[in-house]
Amino acid sequence: MTEQITTVSAYAAPAPDAPLERTTIPRRAVGEFDVLIDIKYAGICHSDIHQARDGWGEGIFPMVPGHEIAGIVAEVGPGVTKFSVGDRVGVGCMVDSCRRCENCAAGLEQYCTGGGNVGTYNALDKNGEPTYGGYSTHIVVDEAFTLRIPDGLALDVAAPLLCAGITVYSPLAHWKAGPGTKVAVVGLGGLGHMAVKIAHAMGAEVTVLSQSLRKKDDGLRLGAEHYYATSDDATFEALAGRFDLILSTVSAPLPLDKYLGLLRTDGAFVNVGAPEEPVSLSLFSVIAGRKTLAGSGIGGIRETQEMLDFCAEHGLGSEIELIRADQINEAYERVLASDVRYRFVIDAATI
Amino acid sequence: MTEQITTVSAYAAPAPDAPLERTTIPRRAVGEFDVLIDIKYAGICHSDIHQARDGWGEGIFPMVPGHEIAGIVAEVGPGVTKFSVGDRVGVGCMVDSCRRCENCAAGLEQYCTGGGNVGTYNALDKNGEPTYGGYSTHIVVDEAFTLRIPDGLALDVAAPLLCAGITVYSPLAHWKAGPGTKVAVVGLGGLGHMAVKIAHAMGAEVTVLSQSLRKKDDGLRLGAEHYYATSDDATFEALAGRFDLILSTVSAPLPLDKYLGLLRTDGAFVNVGAPEEPVSLSLFSVIAGRKTLAGSGIGGIRETQEMLDFCAEHGLGSEIELIRADQINEAYERVLASDVRYRFVIDAATI
Repeated sequence: MTEQITTVSAYAAPAPDAPLERTTIPRRAVGEFDVLIDIKYAGICHSDIHQARDGWGEGIFPMVPGHEIAGIVAEVGPGVTKFSVGDRVGVGCMVDSCRRCENCAAGLEQYCTGGGNVGTYNALDKNGEPTYGGYSTHIVVDEAFTLRIPDGLALDVAAPLLCAGITVYSPLAHWKAGPGTKVAVVGLGGLGHMAVKIAHAMGAEVTVLSQSLRKKDDGLRLGAEHYYATSDDATFEALAGRFDLILSTVSAPLPLDKYLGLLRTDGAFVNVGAPEEPVSLSLFSVIAGRKTLAGSGIGGIRETQEMLDFCAEHGLGSEIELIRADQINEAYERVLASDVRYRFVIDAATI
Repeated sequence: MTEQITTVSAYAAPAPDAPLERTTIPRRAVGEFDVLIDIKYAGICHSDIHQARDGWGEGIFPMVPGHEIAGIVAEVGPGVTKFSVGDRVGVGCMVDSCRRCENCAAGLEQYCTGGGNVGTYNALDKNGEPTYGGYSTHIVVDEAFTLRIPDGLALDVAAPLLCAGITVYSPLAHWKAGPGTKVAVVGLGGLGHMAVKIAHAMGAEVTVLSQSLRKKDDGLRLGAEHYYATSDDATFEALAGRFDLILSTVSAPLPLDKYLGLLRTDGAFVNVGAPEEPVSLSLFSVIAGRKTLAGSGIGGIRETQEMLDFCAEHGLGSEIELIRADQINEAYERVLASDVRYRFVIDAATI
């Protein structure tokens, strides 16, 4: 058992407007219920870029982003029962929560009302120490917030499931995508491409709604049966009243009344991407047809494990482009330009 | 059986900007499945005023408003099986629908996708004839769109249930108001006061959110346990995260982000009143806590009967102020000034 704080290598944004660079950070000693993870891969999430550039304000710098982490257990605390050295594990967006509130008790730690969950990075842990994310060689995490990655999933394509995968799996499960349901996925990016794969594997009939038809071949290959361009107004006429569920993965503000018109009676439009600016809609768009505009944020720990097991069972990994750590800044620019199919994953051996 | 079109007395708006006045209108011959209803009472709904003044445009004039109708069956067509002469009956917002689409088959005629339902007034029936509403001495309606008013409900206090009652009952039932749930009702008017009564009778813990505390005594008497003024910002702090369901019966645009903050995880804010102008919200308000912004419009025929039976069982009528037909225009002004507790009902004997 490591008795001392360890210093490990990482890539960090030293300040809001500075590129990420190699540095070292402290990792806490492995506590009674902790696992030390030898990180193998870390996905790059759009929100990493947002936070590294302090888009939401109040960022904690230096910041080590990364909440799509896959690796191998290197050491366990004496109280750990779920994991052993050598296990294949993952860490997502949270590393702790109050564990006592009604939501935590229900497995909805992402909606913890006892002070909120502790983010994997850019947060303060219960000791008031900043948390550092997955762009790093090692991380120490309580076993309660550590996930098991099934043998059937390669670690590199599993990493993005810890955020992109669960963020779409949770609402697809909650709003009951499955055989006989028609699901539209808005946006075919890191989240959207996983939504297509997962909704298809759940048995739903999947349609991609993308700005253009540029990625149509990909969409159909990933499991969509239909693919429409939202830049074409005819799309909104052709698909009026079609969908049980529309999952929007985009952060641009959409003309919601048009999209709500694509729902059937009792249909739901669920946002997992969210624009910064307020959106506007006519309430008649939800009154006619008893429709729902809803949101969903990541998923709880129990459900994240369920998602990993589901993806392993169905052979669903993320489509990735593996990069070296010294390519992170360039990758950020390409994410912002939507030039990635469909997730950058950092090879932690290069950190 | 009446073979000929009948001429009956009614109050009509001759043109969008003209006060209502006494006139005569044609009623169709009683067809095979029709009932002729001797109207006893007709409620005044806010939307009557809106349509009589052509607020939504494309109004059909002369217009006889009224979709909260209670009366006695005076004659039945030869194919009628559900009703007999002398039965106590009601008519709500619809008098027909396609009867073939999936929604009609499911008892959701209010969301008919086969051309939409036929409004009780200000619409064209299947023969292309304008429909005329309840501010009238008689109406001819297909038995499939005629409701039975149980003996336990007086006809005058039952009339407003046909719109105000079902409009709140349906979402309260759909979103499962009941024992153990906390329901807030926004606005204590014609719809709101019925929402308080019905939600309380369903077993929910009811809170009224009203602009001021002016009607607090009424709210508590009608069944609310709590009453808060929304003009006081402290209300939004005190009630943060409190409600499973918020039912908004107001037509003014609300600061939705503040109201969504009053919901628990998985809570729903449901609009039955709807402002004309678009509303604005931050999608983070629904993402945090997986919340729902939804709408609901009246209710289907089967559910309207269920609502009437429920109200009879629990002794729930509307709080009404009975008026003569020559007071309609004055009543309209008082409705617009929110000076009614809680529904004007026209005594049809005075038409």
